[in-house]
Amino acid sequence: MRVLGVDPGLTRCGIGVVEAGAGRTVGFVDVGVARSQPDLPLERRLLTVADEVERWVARHRPDVIAVERVFSQNNVRTVMGTAQVSGVVALVAARAGLPVAFHTPSEVKAAVTGEGRAGKAQVTAMVTRLLGLDAPPKPADAADALALAICHCWRSPMIDRMAQAQARAEELAAVHRARLAEAQREQGGARPSAAQQWAAARAAADARSAGGWGAR
Amino acid sequence: MRVLGVDPGLTRCGIGVVEAGAGRTVGFVDVGVARSQPDLPLERRLLTVADEVERWVARHRPDVIAVERVFSQNNVRTVMGTAQVSGVVALVAARAGLPVAFHTPSEVKAAVTGEGRAGKAQVTAMVTRLLGLDAPPKPADAADALALAICHCWRSPMIDRMAQAQARAEELAAVHRARLAEAQREQGGARPSAAQQWAAARAAADARSAGGWGAR
Repeated sequence: MRVLGVDPGLTRCGIGVVEAGAGRTVGFVDVGVARSQPDLPLERRLLTVADEVERWVARHRPDVIAVERVFSQNNVRTVMGTAQVSGVVALVAARAGLPVAFHTPSEVKAAVTGEGRAGKAQVTAMVTRLLGLDAPPKPADAADALALAICHCWRSPMIDRMAQAQARAEELAAVHRARLAEAQREQGGARPSAAQQWAAARAAADARSAGGWGAR
Repeated sequence: MRVLGVDPGLTRCGIGVVEAGAGRTVGFVDVGVARSQPDLPLERRLLTVADEVERWVARHRPDVIAVERVFSQNNVRTVMGTAQVSGVVALVAARAGLPVAFHTPSEVKAAVTGEGRAGKAQVTAMVTRLLGLDAPPKPADAADALALAICHCWRSPMIDRMAQAQARAEELAAVHRARLAEAQREQGGARPSAAQQWAAARAAADARSAGGWGAR
């Protein structure tokens, strides 16, 4: 799986590409920064960044784009521009038919350093080590984009498993509800007896084991 | 001048088109709402809204897109989505070669009702009256988009004049600096005399009146 990570920003937008290997190995592919001139009108700045991300997507053909989730609690002066860039990057991904995953800064820090409140230097040092780079990627936005991509490589199997488990649980609940309703109809609208409820639950459990959790 | 106003939102994004006439007259062109399903992934929702705005731009060929300026002080839960939509709309405009103007909610309210803290009902009533509509546009997001477009029709001449005045002032200041530097060189690096400074200022003033403020 190839992941393109984006640390959204108007003046400097970090872009990093990594390849997930076996287990927790991650391989470095490319890193850079999209910049836009602060004196340009906002729409031209967004266009500059969008065009650059589009070029990166075309060049590296990632399977997914990981973007930092922006919070409004951050610096109020820059947060709106950052949110707008993240929206534009998500649009570029959607137009390319790629899924987008958002990770919070603390999820990223926790993934690469084991500590959700790690500092920038710590994140950069771990990214450099994990990817076996000769020198730390600069500027910090570039390192953050690689950290985001690594975070996605490691979190996505867990996120996928959780989504599968949730879908499975919803499917089983639907089966259960259908059997309960059937039992209710057979009783001519009366509430199902405890024995019938038990039978329906039992049937749902059977469906569950037949569905093969083990096989997943 | 044809203005396409956008009240950004993920679930409901208001879009309204008006035509600026002579003086303060404004003509109604079209109004609607772009919607996206809340259960879709964010990037698909942004794509849905962007595609719809793109269709409106193609259909109505506006000269400018007016977008509500989003503040992070608003509802924290929805403000990020709103900011992302506004970024995506600005990108659509930039790709179509159109300028984007941002107006704050209070600028919009002040423009159409004369009161920066007017309520939604008051804004809708004034929009209905100003555009000579038979019924108030619904939902409120649609009325807000028309209000934004009207606000832009009325504010843009003022904004343009201010921008022209600023550009003119910068131009004159540059002329002034150039003459001062020339005077300095003539003196062999010594600071210009008061008389030379006065002459340079005088020349700048001449350039200013020759440039013809009256003609603009």
